[in-house]
Amino acid sequence: MEKIQVAIVGYGNIGQYALQAVEAAPDMECIGIVRRSGAENKPAELAQYPVVKSIKELQGVQVAILATPTRKVEEYAKECLALGINTVDSFDIHTQIVDLRRSLDAVAKANNAVSVISAGWDPGSDSIVRTLMQSLAPKGITYTNFGPGRSMGHSVAVRAIDGVKDALSMTIPVGTGIHRRMVYVELEEGADFDTVAKAIKADPYFVNDETHVQQVDSVDALNDVGHGVNLVRKGVSGKTHNQLFEFDMKINNPALTAQVLVNVARASLKQQPGAYTMIEIPVIDMLPGDKEDLIRHLV
Amino acid sequence: MEKIQVAIVGYGNIGQYALQAVEAAPDMECIGIVRRSGAENKPAELAQYPVVKSIKELQGVQVAILATPTRKVEEYAKECLALGINTVDSFDIHTQIVDLRRSLDAVAKANNAVSVISAGWDPGSDSIVRTLMQSLAPKGITYTNFGPGRSMGHSVAVRAIDGVKDALSMTIPVGTGIHRRMVYVELEEGADFDTVAKAIKADPYFVNDETHVQQVDSVDALNDVGHGVNLVRKGVSGKTHNQLFEFDMKINNPALTAQVLVNVARASLKQQPGAYTMIEIPVIDMLPGDKEDLIRHLV
Repeated sequence: MEKIQVAIVGYGNIGQYALQAVEAAPDMECIGIVRRSGAENKPAELAQYPVVKSIKELQGVQVAILATPTRKVEEYAKECLALGINTVDSFDIHTQIVDLRRSLDAVAKANNAVSVISAGWDPGSDSIVRTLMQSLAPKGITYTNFGPGRSMGHSVAVRAIDGVKDALSMTIPVGTGIHRRMVYVELEEGADFDTVAKAIKADPYFVNDETHVQQVDSVDALNDVGHGVNLVRKGVSGKTHNQLFEFDMKINNPALTAQVLVNVARASLKQQPGAYTMIEIPVIDMLPGDKEDLIRHLV
Repeated sequence: MEKIQVAIVGYGNIGQYALQAVEAAPDMECIGIVRRSGAENKPAELAQYPVVKSIKELQGVQVAILATPTRKVEEYAKECLALGINTVDSFDIHTQIVDLRRSLDAVAKANNAVSVISAGWDPGSDSIVRTLMQSLAPKGITYTNFGPGRSMGHSVAVRAIDGVKDALSMTIPVGTGIHRRMVYVELEEGADFDTVAKAIKADPYFVNDETHVQQVDSVDALNDVGHGVNLVRKGVSGKTHNQLFEFDMKINNPALTAQVLVNVARASLKQQPGAYTMIEIPVIDMLPGDKEDLIRHLV
């Protein structure tokens, strides 16, 4: 079997888990890592891989897994697509997904390539569940309840506040899509806790949510990448009310994001040129193996 | 907006709910019902619809919703596909799905039509969830727990036993894909309960499951079409173990089956000629409306 030739662009948290997921995939091969520092200070687990500064230094890449910060996705995706290389990313700014899709769709089509965007768990696999639930009960309400787990965006917002040395914002689901924020802060010497707590609660990221701030000696001591989601829909199938649906998961966040990226990397090779979100791709395309075998075991 | 022109073939339990689901769909129109008795003894709710004995008597049908018994699906599907009419069905004999797909794929392609098969909730929407879960944690075990709810197949098996006037077999989930059978029987006059109970427990449908038989005065008094499923997977994303996923629903069984049939009827118009199971179709295709709007709200 010819293995799918994959490159990983970015080698932070998601990039490291993406490499594990590629190594665990029976039908894929990592042929290189792209990162700003190139081969300098190459970590031990990358000994067997070429580590380069630009995707152009790698030959034969079929799919680039973009494990870059969200705001860098468009730039890197365009660079890869222009070379005829498929891309996958987990772009997570919900309000900009349609724009990114339009922009990458044009570049992908012009270069006979495929881009799968916003492929993580939310947006991503949760989007598939939300879409399925809406189809099963077209009238009704869906609630997406996140956590317990860290919110990157909220943690970053707290770290930007004067007097904060390190911070962690936990998202706690309280039902019906409402979330409590539990914020743990490590203070700079001489900083006043009450002033910091007040500034956090007034921040646009927190002002509309129930927010509790606690001072801790070490934010690092709280580090746990576990996360979760609970998706609930109650609605109407045809003319029949009170149809109840629920999806629940408790997961290692970067490990799941990386697995989804690997799945859509595989699926990208089965799509026509263009840009896609996950709800536009048949779920069977995310799995390796013979189509009829998969149908036999999963349908 | 041009509405999708739908015919419903078969007007039993599922056919009646299918009509409700078509009537509730903003983008569809039922242009006729096909049933063996034709317009004879036409029920009141069909007053506004042509009721005919053959699909050939209806003009302009784009999709036929086959609400026939499972064993009649192939015959009716071929008749419709040969006329260039798309078909959807909820064929539910798991071991024969691949064969049906092959058989209808050939006829569909030859007539430039689409057939979506085994589109109910299991097989059907559950198949999408199972496939998604397997993709999120490629190594691991999935358990499908059915119920509480009636099993048609098991109920029919009991009714075939000597001395049984009417029967209902309830499927009760006891976890890890194991089910208890609660069998309620109404006996013929003079029948011996212990003999009947023994025969039920020895029947191939029941011999491997924990089975309890109870005599009741009226099986009809127990009639409730509620059903449920609980799908659980624990597995490995990349190299990270203990990833936990769960899908749960409590639903009116025929109403959900009918809604799924309507969804895939819509989706059938967006596929290339051939036969498909639900895991081969993008979930977005099951919803009405503008693609970018759907992406904006659901991704």
